[in-house]
Amino acid sequence: MAAPNFDRTELEALLSKRFFYAPSFSIYGGVAGLYDYGPTGCALQTNLLTVWRNHFVLEEDMLELDCSILTPAEVLKTSGHVDKFSDFMVKDTKTGDIYRADHLVKGVLEARLEGHLLAKMGKLGVTGGDKKDAPAKPAGKKVKKGTVVAVQLSDEVANEYQTILAQLDNYDGPGLGDLITRLDIRALDTGNPVTPPVEFNLMFESSIGPTGQLKGYLRPETAQGQFLNFKRLLEFNNDRVPFASATIGKSFRNEISPRAGLLRVREFTMAEIEHFVDPLLKDHPRFAEVADVKLRLLPAATQLAGGSDITEVTIGEAVQSKLVDNETLGYFLVRIYKFLIRIGINPDRLRFRQHMSNEMAHYACDCWDAEIQSSYGWIECVGCADRSAYDLSVHAAKTKERLTVQQPLPEPIIEDVVQLTLNKKVFGPRFKKAARVVEDHLNSLDESQLLALQTQLATGAEVPVVAGDGNTYQLDASLLTIERVQVKHNVREFTPNVIEPSFGIGRILYSLIEHSYYLREGDDAQRGVLSFPTCVAPFKCLVLPLSNAEVFNPTVQYLARQLRRLGIAAKVDDSSASIGKRYARNDELGTSFALTVDFQTVKDQTVTLRERDSTQQIRQPVDQVLVILKELIAEETTWKDVVAKYPLFTAQEVPQ
Amino acid sequence: MAAPNFDRTELEALLSKRFFYAPSFSIYGGVAGLYDYGPTGCALQTNLLTVWRNHFVLEEDMLELDCSILTPAEVLKTSGHVDKFSDFMVKDTKTGDIYRADHLVKGVLEARLEGHLLAKMGKLGVTGGDKKDAPAKPAGKKVKKGTVVAVQLSDEVANEYQTILAQLDNYDGPGLGDLITRLDIRALDTGNPVTPPVEFNLMFESSIGPTGQLKGYLRPETAQGQFLNFKRLLEFNNDRVPFASATIGKSFRNEISPRAGLLRVREFTMAEIEHFVDPLLKDHPRFAEVADVKLRLLPAATQLAGGSDITEVTIGEAVQSKLVDNETLGYFLVRIYKFLIRIGINPDRLRFRQHMSNEMAHYACDCWDAEIQSSYGWIECVGCADRSAYDLSVHAAKTKERLTVQQPLPEPIIEDVVQLTLNKKVFGPRFKKAARVVEDHLNSLDESQLLALQTQLATGAEVPVVAGDGNTYQLDASLLTIERVQVKHNVREFTPNVIEPSFGIGRILYSLIEHSYYLREGDDAQRGVLSFPTCVAPFKCLVLPLSNAEVFNPTVQYLARQLRRLGIAAKVDDSSASIGKRYARNDELGTSFALTVDFQTVKDQTVTLRERDSTQQIRQPVDQVLVILKELIAEETTWKDVVAKYPLFTAQEVPQ
Repeated sequence: MAAPNFDRTELEALLSKRFFYAPSFSIYGGVAGLYDYGPTGCALQTNLLTVWRNHFVLEEDMLELDCSILTPAEVLKTSGHVDKFSDFMVKDTKTGDIYRADHLVKGVLEARLEGHLLAKMGKLGVTGGDKKDAPAKPAGKKVKKGTVVAVQLSDEVANEYQTILAQLDNYDGPGLGDLITRLDIRALDTGNPVTPPVEFNLMFESSIGPTGQLKGYLRPETAQGQFLNFKRLLEFNNDRVPFASATIGKSFRNEISPRAGLLRVREFTMAEIEHFVDPLLKDHPRFAEVADVKLRLLPAATQLAGGSDITEVTIGEAVQSKLVDNETLGYFLVRIYKFLIRIGINPDRLRFRQHMSNEMAHYACDCWDAEIQSSYGWIECVGCADRSAYDLSVHAAKTKERLTVQQPLPEPIIEDVVQLTLNKKVFGPRFKKAARVVEDHLNSLDESQLLALQTQLATGAEVPVVAGDGNTYQLDASLLTIERVQVKHNVREFTPNVIEPSFGIGRILYSLIEHSYYLREGDDAQRGVLSFPTCVAPFKCLVLPLSNAEVFNPTVQYLARQLRRLGIAAKVDDSSASIGKRYARNDELGTSFALTVDFQTVKDQTVTLRERDSTQQIRQPVDQVLVILKELIAEETTWKDVVAKYPLFTAQEVPQ
Repeated sequence: MAAPNFDRTELEALLSKRFFYAPSFSIYGGVAGLYDYGPTGCALQTNLLTVWRNHFVLEEDMLELDCSILTPAEVLKTSGHVDKFSDFMVKDTKTGDIYRADHLVKGVLEARLEGHLLAKMGKLGVTGGDKKDAPAKPAGKKVKKGTVVAVQLSDEVANEYQTILAQLDNYDGPGLGDLITRLDIRALDTGNPVTPPVEFNLMFESSIGPTGQLKGYLRPETAQGQFLNFKRLLEFNNDRVPFASATIGKSFRNEISPRAGLLRVREFTMAEIEHFVDPLLKDHPRFAEVADVKLRLLPAATQLAGGSDITEVTIGEAVQSKLVDNETLGYFLVRIYKFLIRIGINPDRLRFRQHMSNEMAHYACDCWDAEIQSSYGWIECVGCADRSAYDLSVHAAKTKERLTVQQPLPEPIIEDVVQLTLNKKVFGPRFKKAARVVEDHLNSLDESQLLALQTQLATGAEVPVVAGDGNTYQLDASLLTIERVQVKHNVREFTPNVIEPSFGIGRILYSLIEHSYYLREGDDAQRGVLSFPTCVAPFKCLVLPLSNAEVFNPTVQYLARQLRRLGIAAKVDDSSASIGKRYARNDELGTSFALTVDFQTVKDQTVTLRERDSTQQIRQPVDQVLVILKELIAEETTWKDVVAKYPLFTAQEVPQ
């Protein structure tokens, strides 16, 4: 749902004009799902990542990594991505156009439900574009792209559609195929039948080295690099858990049909945290600090019942009731919430949605998405998954590296075990080349099998065993000893679990832009404003001379130099546009403050300081204004405090 | 050349132990040319990039962009990379091992020259490993990897080898092939003959989208994204040049045989600037500020004469004498120099080497590399090329977009031109479908041809012309007018030239580590220190309790909190290692300062502040120390000032 009066076309025009971002390679016709960030978007992103780094890496003492994007196939085979990191696609049987299967089902069912509503309201026919005011046309079987057919459905069917939509993320490929057949889902653009869904792996493939023999992929997430460095990280952390690593970097997914601007792209910046924790100790030392924070939750159970009602509870209650699995997961949900609010996301348009079981990634055992509402609907912007011990376990099994924590036990643990000891002096010479395969066979026996063997050998008989090579070998008591012994463990060894908050920076950035955007009445027309919090605003301050009269230059230059010295990102706008136009341009850039140099400046060395959202101004001596500005940007004071302390300035001059 | 007493093995052990960086995917056996940065290296890189962004983007008001890495083939075809971005490789004819041709020639000739020196010193035979003290062995034709054969060469041959090495970057593939044949260059590892050099394109290929029909590459440089956005950037800059764009991001080159650690890798972070400038106005408004800065230059002419002597001149002189082509190029050389010195590069181990003509990239018209000396020799770390109008021109020609600047002229320029005007009313009906091809033919005529045609038509005769379709068409005076007219130009249109400083961040980072590294006598052994300037040090401050006695905790926690509040990257080390060991560990991390909490702290709330390089300490009250530390890190004061003001503290306690 969009905010009231929100017009995406207008916002997009602003974003393009002010070069927040634009389709990549547009002079070559562009490539779907690839975008370039301009100076404004790039600064916004850099600031957003700085807040992120302070909020997570510095405040939580995380170990930041920067790992390779190119990844050999073997790593992603082990992690499960080669086999399972895919979406389902269908083809229009006549045109060959490709759709993502779940998106097609969603599009068709939503259109049918909309047609149902129209029909119930008494409108017959076909609508296109702006659905409310579209002219009615006769319903037909084949209709053009983006059209809605006003056909009333039975309540039963309408309810079924709604339930399917609520659970859509829970369908796999065959499930989607069944829906497509049963509900006669056809290609949106042509009305043609579509093929059954086929799996399409979302990773970009390449080959590494001059021989072309080493197959690789562009990483689809930054997580694997962090897992593979687990041993080094553990050592860096003095062999203690819990600790967290973090990575900010690009990942790549070959989306089937990219759309919705920055929300579904093929190359994107992620910020991912891997928090390694003892599986038996998932409480969090700082949980008490956040227990009272209320979150808006959408549990899996609600969705499975076909609903979407929000449960608003404190995270303390949610963890206590086991709705959220453990304290660490809960702690991170709150930290994510606080980060998003800090950068300017509207809390009323933010919710945490729990994954349903089939929806969960192949590695996850519980997962909550921070979803942000924009004109595109509710969009996953942060995932927060408990990946359990999945990744470390599979990489350890594949590479034979011990990706575990060894923890000294306060008291040793005594354990009874059945121990097999080979008499190597006899064993080796007896079996020669086959010694290895016989040994492997013996090692594969469990305790009861070993004890049974021991009983047989104790009779003094030769015992035939069939080893892994299919041959039979004769054992006797001279070759080995099997006995019950007590083993003392001084160390507990375990594979840590991983809690993973994973941020899609482009999605957050776009949502933030929508939440920050509003229209203000201008001199001649409504004008867009982007009311970013100062901490993320691309530019903090605009410096502008009232006109391009020479006499303003020294003060403009002085201000620019001082702002640079203070590390404040500022822009000088000495173009010939009117002062009102330049303020408006700046509101569109989301610049928090403006300093204006006018004829009074020349007389008394005062300048005006304007705040973007209130458009209020004060007038003070240049150096005093710089002090105020510095405090505002460091968030040591607020604009409310400033106008309480200094008189408002209202008599804006006009150029002479 | 390495610094005196430098031992790379020791440094590499330190870098691995303190997790600056490590080979990627090492638990899977690793992939050559791919590295992961650990917490220390990652923080070092982030700080280095922050200094870079302040030094260039903020101070020079550049427009930062973040563009797509995935790039459609057509773009890189146009830019010349598909055809020309390659190195030459040769294969061992027996083993199939692959070498980069120029590296092989260099390796073999250097080994021969070394053998020549050994032989002249009277050592006969073969050496391996540490060359000075190796035992003499008889010379043989096939010797093992890394060995040097002591064979004296004629002075003539030795001189020729030296000249070839000085000019090696100037050889193309066939040239290298000739050298290999003529000088009997063989595979280093086996002594086998090698194949003639073949070109190998260094770009990683992939395909974009689900159909696999759109071929793409991973960008080999960030520059193309900046060129493709030229129109948007120009508009953002109010249609004025000069201006510069900048990008920090990853690029990819499929190196034939990556080696030398971070110096030759397949995936790397670059920081690139594209400065767009009027080709007729390459002076720079701030050149006077830098004109007196002396640089160490290695001109192309010196290299072509087989030499490597440095010319040390001010950039003012270098530009005046045309050694450096223009002020803008010279200005950037100084800015690069200042950046490198600021982050801690040793100025005596830094030079600017001019490219020789064949060496220059396909787009460049003049180029200087900032080369930094390390144990691997002189390595290009920053390129500074004048790419002329090459890139904008080829993209404009390919896409038909006008990638030009339109500049209002102060005085209109009046120009005499010969103008062709078609009488469309007659022309169209006469030629019908062929009208287009006849018109194209007329438009292709130059002024003298048009005037000749005019003379013929003026006789009233029909004039036959052969158009592009091979057919003959009859023209007469009713169809067109050709006349001399005066045209007034109010606007000058030109394609800007581009000056491109391009930074290899990994190479700079590694060189910086070598320049910062030294050994200090410790209690029991020499210990490594990394004396990074504070602005780039991965961690600014260590906080450590004298022992793990409970009584120190409150102050340690207080300090950690305060440092976080001040935005100072700090680490607490409360491990059980001795205080000396923990200081040493910290010297290895390059941490500038340490705060130690001891029993005196508990009594009088003072702590000691230790400086890494001098190992001097002062002791002051906690909050006073925080103020001093803040000033030190902001570079508002120096350690010299601090010890001049506060007494040194020498009586270090030992844990009780």
